[in-house]
Parts: sequence; C-alpha cells; structure tokens
Amino acid sequence: MLMPLLRNGIPKPISKIRARFSTASSIAGRKSYKLFSLGDFSLCEGATLRDAKLAYKTYGSLNAQGDNAIVYPTWFSGRHWDNEWLIGSDMGLDPSKYFIIVPNMLGNGLSTSPSNSAPPYDKARFPNVRVQDNVRAQHKLVTEEFGIQTLKLVLGWSMGAGQTFQWAVSYPKMVERILPFCGSARTSPHNQVFLEGVKAALASDDAFQSGWYNQLPTKGLRAAARVYAGWGFSQAFYWNETWRELGFSSLEDFLVGYWEGFFLDDRDPNNLLAMLWTWKNGNVGLTPGFDGSLERALASIQAKAIVMPAEKDLYFPPEDEEYETSFMPNAKLRIIPGVWGHFAGTGLNPVDAKFIDDAVKELLNS
Amino acid sequence: MLMPLLRNGIPKPISKIRARFSTASSIAGRKSYKLFSLGDFSLCEGATLRDAKLAYKTYGSLNAQGDNAIVYPTWFSGRHWDNEWLIGSDMGLDPSKYFIIVPNMLGNGLSTSPSNSAPPYDKARFPNVRVQDNVRAQHKLVTEEFGIQTLKLVLGWSMGAGQTFQWAVSYPKMVERILPFCGSARTSPHNQVFLEGVKAALASDDAFQSGWYNQLPTKGLRAAARVYAGWGFSQAFYWNETWRELGFSSLEDFLVGYWEGFFLDDRDPNNLLAMLWTWKNGNVGLTPGFDGSLERALASIQAKAIVMPAEKDLYFPPEDEEYETSFMPNAKLRIIPGVWGHFAGTGLNPVDAKFIDDAVKELLNS
Repeated sequence: MLMPLLRNGIPKPISKIRARFSTASSIAGRKSYKLFSLGDFSLCEGATLRDAKLAYKTYGSLNAQGDNAIVYPTWFSGRHWDNEWLIGSDMGLDPSKYFIIVPNMLGNGLSTSPSNSAPPYDKARFPNVRVQDNVRAQHKLVTEEFGIQTLKLVLGWSMGAGQTFQWAVSYPKMVERILPFCGSARTSPHNQVFLEGVKAALASDDAFQSGWYNQLPTKGLRAAARVYAGWGFSQAFYWNETWRELGFSSLEDFLVGYWEGFFLDDRDPNNLLAMLWTWKNGNVGLTPGFDGSLERALASIQAKAIVMPAEKDLYFPPEDEEYETSFMPNAKLRIIPGVWGHFAGTGLNPVDAKFIDDAVKELLNS
Repeated sequence: MLMPLLRNGIPKPISKIRARFSTASSIAGRKSYKLFSLGDFSLCEGATLRDAKLAYKTYGSLNAQGDNAIVYPTWFSGRHWDNEWLIGSDMGLDPSKYFIIVPNMLGNGLSTSPSNSAPPYDKARFPNVRVQDNVRAQHKLVTEEFGIQTLKLVLGWSMGAGQTFQWAVSYPKMVERILPFCGSARTSPHNQVFLEGVKAALASDDAFQSGWYNQLPTKGLRAAARVYAGWGFSQAFYWNETWRELGFSSLEDFLVGYWEGFFLDDRDPNNLLAMLWTWKNGNVGLTPGFDGSLERALASIQAKAIVMPAEKDLYFPPEDEEYETSFMPNAKLRIIPGVWGHFAGTGLNPVDAKFIDDAVKELLNS
C-alpha cells in the first residue's frame, strides 16, 4: 500500500524527501519485513497472544562486538517504512555505522493485530496490549534473535516515544541513550480525552458494528480523520496555510487529500482502536517496582536523554515533557520550534527533520 | 429544559453560582422570553426566512433618554438564560442601571431555527445564516421595537463575541463599547478544522440521516460531545483535574455527565449544524464596504474595546486576538489567565467570572 501522499500524486517537497523510495521496486523493498516468533506471549492485562509475531525490519549490520544497535519503534498506525525518513547515510541513523532495528507495534497490522489474528482473539476481541508488552516483545527480539546486550540508542516519535521511555525504564542497564520526540512517558488526561473523541467519531458509524464489520466503516474513518486534523498540526500551521508546502490546494483539499487519505490508507479500525488503547493507557509508572509512580519510574532511568517535544504540539504539549524531564537524572529538554505541532515528528518538513537529526547525531556522538 | 448539570444533580460549586435560579418557579422564569417578528427576512446568502422570529429577553428598563441599552448575544447552542450568570445587581451588567437585551441566535432553537421552521426551509434545508444576518436581525429588534439609537455596550462569549465584533463593524456610530470574550472577528482556519471534526462525528451516526432524522441521533451527539471535550477546556485543566471543582468524580464521569449531558440537553443536531455554519463562516471583513478585508473592517471600529481571549483557549488562541486587536484603533487586549481554556467564558468558575465582570465594570465606567 502506498503512502497517501504518493497515491495522490507526489507534491514537490515530499518527492524530494522521499526521492529514494520513488521507484516501484524500492517501494516493494520498503514493504518487505521479517517476522520474529514471540510464541505464546502473555500480556500485562492477562490475555495470551498465542503464536504471536513481531514484524520488524533492520537497516545496516550488527558489528562483531554487538554494540552498535539502535531500536526505533513505530507510532500510532505507523509502519516500519514510516520511520525511514530519519535513516540514511548522511544522517545520524547511518546504516553503515549502526544496526537499526525498527519493530512494528503490536496492533499495527504487520505485527500481531486484530486484523491478522485468528479467532477467538481477532477483531473486536483483540486483547488490551500495554506499551510495556510491546517493549518486552521487542526485548525478546533484540536479545534472542540478535543476542544484543546493549543498545546505543532507542528513539521514536509519538507512541514510539512512549515505547522509548518504557525501554529506558524496563531495561535501564541496557539502554545507553534515548531520544523520545513528541511523546510522553505517561499519557496525559487531556491526551486521553482527545483520543476518546477520535474513537467516538470512528465508532459512531453504524457500519463499524462494534468492531464486527465485514466492510470498512469508511464514514467513521473519515470522521476520525477530520477530528484528528485539528490536533495533528497547530493553529499557526493552519493560519499560515503551511499545508501548501505539502502540495495541497485548499484547506478542504488538505482535509480530504491528506487526512482522509491517511486514515483510508490500509488503517483497519480495530487495529486503530487496539493501538489507541495502548496509547491511552501508557504510563511507565506501571512498570513493576514503581508502585504506579511516574516520577519514580522516570528517576530510575539511567540513559542519557534528549527529550524533544514540539513547541506547538496540542496533545503532547512541551510543559508535560518539562515536567517529565525534571525527574530524569540525565536528560535535556530540547523543544522543536515551529508551527508543525505534533506532526513535526513525521519527517514531512525538512527543517524539523534536520532539527531532530541533528539531535540524534549529537546524542550518538556523546 | 434544565441545564445538564442541574439535571444530573447540582454539584456544590455550581449550585452556589446558580443559586438564584434554583427554585422551580425561577427556572420557569428563566425560560420565558419574547418573540420579535422579523417578517420576511432575507439572508446574505440569498434565501429568505419567511415570518422569521427573534427570541429575546430583557433585563432592567430602558431609561427616558434611551441611552442605557446593552446587547449581549448568545453563543453556539446557548440560550438567553446561559448568559444570566454575568447579569446581577452586584455586577457590571446591573439591571437597575442598564437595559440588557439578550437576543437568541438564529438557529438556537428559540429564534427561527431548523427545529422550529415550517417546510420547506425546515430541518436539513434551513438556509445558511451569517453572523451579519444575526446582527442585522438584532439591530431591527433594538431600533424598531425599542427605538434605541445608541448602545452603551455590546458583549458576548465565543460566537457571541463574533456577533459583538460584527455589531461594531456594521453599526460603528451606534456602538459605544464592545467586550468580546473568547471569540474572534474572523473564524480562523484551525477553528474551522476543529468544527469540521465536530460535524463529522455528529454526521457519522447513520441515525442522523443527512439531517432528515425523526429520532435524535444520540450516538452522533455523544460522539460530537466527546470530540468537543478536548477542545473546550485546556490541557492543564485536565492535568489538574479541575473538573473536580464542578462536582465530577472521574474523568469519564466528566465526559459523560458534563459533555454528553450538554449535547443531549435539547440540542437539535440540525440546529447545531446551522449555528456551526454561521460560526465557521464568520468574518467581519465580508461586511459590505471592506472588500473581504478583516483588517480594514477592524480598523473601522469606533467603539472602545476590551478584547478578552482566554490564555489557554485552544480554538480561539490569544495570538489571534492579539492580531485582530492590533488593527482596532481603540482596543485593549486583556487575556483571561488560567486553565479553563475556552470555557473560561461560561461563568462556570467564580475566578474567571469575576475577571470578566471586572472588565465589564471598567469598560462601562470609562
């Protein structure tokens, strides 16, 4: 499945960013991935995913010492190829130096998900998966498949940032550095309310049938997309009509072409809601040993960190990361400036992409 | 119909604020209103509302000179009684001194609306009404019914603020003072995107039937409520659990008890969408004579103004009012501090209510 922007014709700035994926063969290459067998994988909330699989892709090679590995988890509805904009020979995540592992989140449609599970745990019966479960699954992959004992860096955007924090809390001695961008260690109550709105819009479509649809509830998906649109980018992004930089011709063209296209791009509703549950319930304080305390969990992090909220992110606002960073012994807060809001972390615009890449380079070289 | 909060039992802080409306007889009194006949009222967009009515209520008496009148229009889905928290003998809007007219917006269910219009312009066929139309209708009421030639003050919250700006632009010599709070003279593009999300969530319910429902599409109303919840109050409001001050016992209790209750409180979906269109298309620059220029229209305002955005308003952010105020010759920008976001202007909390009332007093005494 192509990215929605490619599908709708490649706007110029995007075509530059994504030039290296523009041929049919390389698109097929991007889509390829491996499956790691998790076996019968028991979840924090009690269910067991039987014969569970973690889909992943790697870039570069593990060196003889096994000390050049980086983990870069995916985000809400994202797939490994959506992370590739930050990987390249001229970038911090340079595959000629590092072994970069991109695990797909449980529920994203490639790893074990509502859409690809066998009954009885399929579709609306897919069990609740926590961020902790994702990170434990990734840890199995990293240690059992590759025998890796230390990670140079864990990083990620949005829910990928949530997994990044969790890695540093769950495996403090293993993770040397973290760079979570536009995400948090605990999902804030306002963020939960935003997610409730997205969920309600999606579920309001009768065709959703409480998750037992045989045909996609596209009206609900489009509604969820339109709800999301106001949150994904900042007020100033819309005021300035910055969407023109992405090749859209009007506000409505952006809402349909970008947002509805995004949600119709092979995003299964049950998958979305499974990941949404994971997101809504994210909290490193729930890791065993911290008695529910976010602050104590953050204080236990040993990794050197650059924490990067975006200046105008409406659901992961910078003040939340200022708060979280204040408990971390070895962390810098570095705000991504500008109007792109949460979507500063998508790689959609070269300025923010460079700002993040510069931080990756700095952190890796420290 | 009672306020949702009263319906669900009166939480303590609210009961204090609303003590004067707490008896059954005074509730009936609040609901009473008069109808002004607009006759066949032609709208900017071309349709004619035949035998149109403006519902209004007045507080106090017009003095012999006819120079103590104040207009205080309603907000999106609000009704005249929702404005009463700012009216009282100890407040700026003192009915013993001023003649306060609260006109209900076209589309709010009391004035001519989708829900109370005869065919063929009823329900989903209700025509598009502009802010300009509302203000022209109110001007007819004020001048023809009461013979008023000058207004001491026009003020309003949210869409009421939009009407306030429009009054000052449409009738510059008539309006001496304006105090728009948590609203704008032109609806920003981001605000439009937020509204598209609310609309899509409501319309996603099949029971909505493109507006031709015979039974309320309550699933869509509840979804719209949950979308709205994240926008109405700020991130910090939710972080601090400030909803506890309103008597709610959990976040979900607030989402259901306050928000869903709010949208189920006699809010007709076609009425909501009619007002939403008015809101989305608000722009004083479209007043004849300004050639679409917001800035030129604002510059024409002669009224003395205190413009009051709320510090953490997510859809009418303070920077938008900083921009608008910069073109007004006689305006002060005064930001309402605190975490209540857009809903700072509801009268729900005493601190913000006093802050706004203090500004009303200051402006009236100047």
